[in-house]
Amino acid sequence: MKAEIIAVGTELLLGQVVNTNATFLSEELADLGIEVYYHTVVGDNPGRLEQLLAEAEKRSDLIVLCGGLGPTDDDLTKDTVAAHIHRSLIQDEQALARLHEFFTFSKNKMTENNLKQTLMIEGGIAVQNPTGLAVGTLITADETTYLLLPGPPNELKPMFLQNARPLLEELFPQAEQLMSRVLRFYGIGESQLVTELKELIDTQTNPTIAPYAKPNEVTLRLTAKISDAAKGQALLDSLEAQVMTKVGEYFYGYGDDNSLVKVTVEALKAHGKTISAAESLTAGLFQSTLGDIAGVSEVFKGGFITYSAETKEQFLGIDHKLLEKEGVVSEACAIAMAEQARKLADADFAVSFTGVAGPDELEGQPAGTVWIGIAEKGQPAFATLQHFNRDRRYIRQSAVMKGLDLIRRAVTKKK
Amino acid sequence: MKAEIIAVGTELLLGQVVNTNATFLSEELADLGIEVYYHTVVGDNPGRLEQLLAEAEKRSDLIVLCGGLGPTDDDLTKDTVAAHIHRSLIQDEQALARLHEFFTFSKNKMTENNLKQTLMIEGGIAVQNPTGLAVGTLITADETTYLLLPGPPNELKPMFLQNARPLLEELFPQAEQLMSRVLRFYGIGESQLVTELKELIDTQTNPTIAPYAKPNEVTLRLTAKISDAAKGQALLDSLEAQVMTKVGEYFYGYGDDNSLVKVTVEALKAHGKTISAAESLTAGLFQSTLGDIAGVSEVFKGGFITYSAETKEQFLGIDHKLLEKEGVVSEACAIAMAEQARKLADADFAVSFTGVAGPDELEGQPAGTVWIGIAEKGQPAFATLQHFNRDRRYIRQSAVMKGLDLIRRAVTKKK
Repeated sequence: MKAEIIAVGTELLLGQVVNTNATFLSEELADLGIEVYYHTVVGDNPGRLEQLLAEAEKRSDLIVLCGGLGPTDDDLTKDTVAAHIHRSLIQDEQALARLHEFFTFSKNKMTENNLKQTLMIEGGIAVQNPTGLAVGTLITADETTYLLLPGPPNELKPMFLQNARPLLEELFPQAEQLMSRVLRFYGIGESQLVTELKELIDTQTNPTIAPYAKPNEVTLRLTAKISDAAKGQALLDSLEAQVMTKVGEYFYGYGDDNSLVKVTVEALKAHGKTISAAESLTAGLFQSTLGDIAGVSEVFKGGFITYSAETKEQFLGIDHKLLEKEGVVSEACAIAMAEQARKLADADFAVSFTGVAGPDELEGQPAGTVWIGIAEKGQPAFATLQHFNRDRRYIRQSAVMKGLDLIRRAVTKKK
Repeated sequence: MKAEIIAVGTELLLGQVVNTNATFLSEELADLGIEVYYHTVVGDNPGRLEQLLAEAEKRSDLIVLCGGLGPTDDDLTKDTVAAHIHRSLIQDEQALARLHEFFTFSKNKMTENNLKQTLMIEGGIAVQNPTGLAVGTLITADETTYLLLPGPPNELKPMFLQNARPLLEELFPQAEQLMSRVLRFYGIGESQLVTELKELIDTQTNPTIAPYAKPNEVTLRLTAKISDAAKGQALLDSLEAQVMTKVGEYFYGYGDDNSLVKVTVEALKAHGKTISAAESLTAGLFQSTLGDIAGVSEVFKGGFITYSAETKEQFLGIDHKLLEKEGVVSEACAIAMAEQARKLADADFAVSFTGVAGPDELEGQPAGTVWIGIAEKGQPAFATLQHFNRDRRYIRQSAVMKGLDLIRRAVTKKK
């Protein structure tokens, strides 16, 4: 079952609009067990679309088209597909009734070109548009199925989910379903992860293992293709266990909709611990990242941004002599910052960041040199020296991620 | 001059990643006068990529490929293109030196597979990667030019802008050049901006006016297609003057590589003024945004994150009775926060944020209710009530942008 997605619209080729429809449809089709082999974008040009359809019908069982169902002259998808499979366009009565209803309710004048939106391809199934006026069509001709959807994502998504997806499920019932599980890792690069798992990745066919590098983390997607759900889970469990023996120390959580900050805040909540921070080069990025999480106020009350040496003294009461002797980019300064922030906020934990964001060096140390301090009530504070690469933004973000991981490990006692 | 963009990566076909690279590259190529006729996405499959290359070279003068330059076995773009044009892969010494430098500095172990990233196609021009390790190639063979770029947008964009774009400009000079000027606006929505400028937009052909909405701001790109540079500048000057009479009050700066925070920090520097902040719902996002700007230490020494009522008392010394009587989401609290932050940091200006990030309401006020306070040395402090829409992240970001604009206007005395 091979599918491809064709988006029609010159605005996409001019870079004015991002093709999020292809992303949405790909995820949905994968979920239906339909494999997508190509995405193509073509402009509002009937000749090039026809050429593409001729190519696509040779290689795909299902062609999903989005865009070009609207009322204006450059909306040509329906006409082109109909001509390609030698059908006519006919009036869809339900869409027509909806159109009249819409204009009666809004009291706007209905221009003639709107009628075009209510046409569908003869012999197909009309796919109604819950949030717009353009009707879609699902039609099979010469062993290829065409699904025509509108371009605006706020119309395409509800139309697909409510009306097109059930039709596809009926038309292409899956013997096997795709079950996937996402594992998230911090502290290991993609190249090293793949090296550690090389044998597994090379020999694995079902489930498959797909690594994906994101800024400062790597995810692994394990995907089983299986008819029996329980067996699928067992396969994923077994593969996960093998992965964990190799790289388990870097694993921090499951799922696409997860992050190191979520897991860290959850750990603090679960252990009933609070956190504060004193930030120099990160300038609030750590605490702002905590602030992304709804309900973080349960564990986070506030903290300090001490960008200069003076504010490290004024806000945190760090000894002038310490700063003079050790410098601000130092283990002693990071420890003092974390300890003072923890005490002043009366928190269980505190983290501190002091270092060189760049591009220039500071105290003779190069950009990317960062000390991160961790204070914990009843424990001696410590600091760790990190060397981060790339630009200012990436260095600061890398520091925040490392700080989150240090806190997560301190809270859960995983050293 | 016909071009097409091929993105290589199974993660795109699975709907895990949005193809923003195609959007970025399309905009850039349009700016170079190069027309893009197709976007295609294909998986990490050498057979299908080869088939696509065979098709693409028949119809395009320039093929831009992104993705598949990484260290793992499924990164196959370089090999496939090299085989397609009968060339070998060779070591790029500059990329190799950078790779060694990277691993030496970060003290991470360099795995063997990283070397793959430093290979380029023989006979081409190496395109260096300023923010990553994979080197690109620009090569012309059989009248088709191939440009190979990495997949991660944070590598692709700087590589294109700094290294690939100049090469393309040289290779494909335009008889008529496109001259463009970007105007940036804060405080007006796209639909209102377009309504205000409707007549200008509808009647204008050269220069053209293209509005583009970004989170919390709108840009207008004025583009003249002209052979005479001086005449082009004059045309842009005249159009800009017309735009400014309509919406000049919202204008804050020029250029693609600009932002409200840059302009605000520049204004502070130009006036020799310093700034501090006390943040509640934004939790450091304002100060962290300042921290994005290199050299901000000249005007920013530090500030406070007072997420809870207690830390507003403890860190800022705000009167307990004020908080009890007025609440934390109040004009009085915002003013007190700004005043105290300014005094404690001994700064010329301070901004404060207190309100409801959501999703839940606070003190009976709905998510999006935000008081922003502004304190200025020798002036009475004031606060302004804002109502922001959408989700938690957007509300916090909207608050930061409004805070920057208030400070920019206060520093430059544009009320």
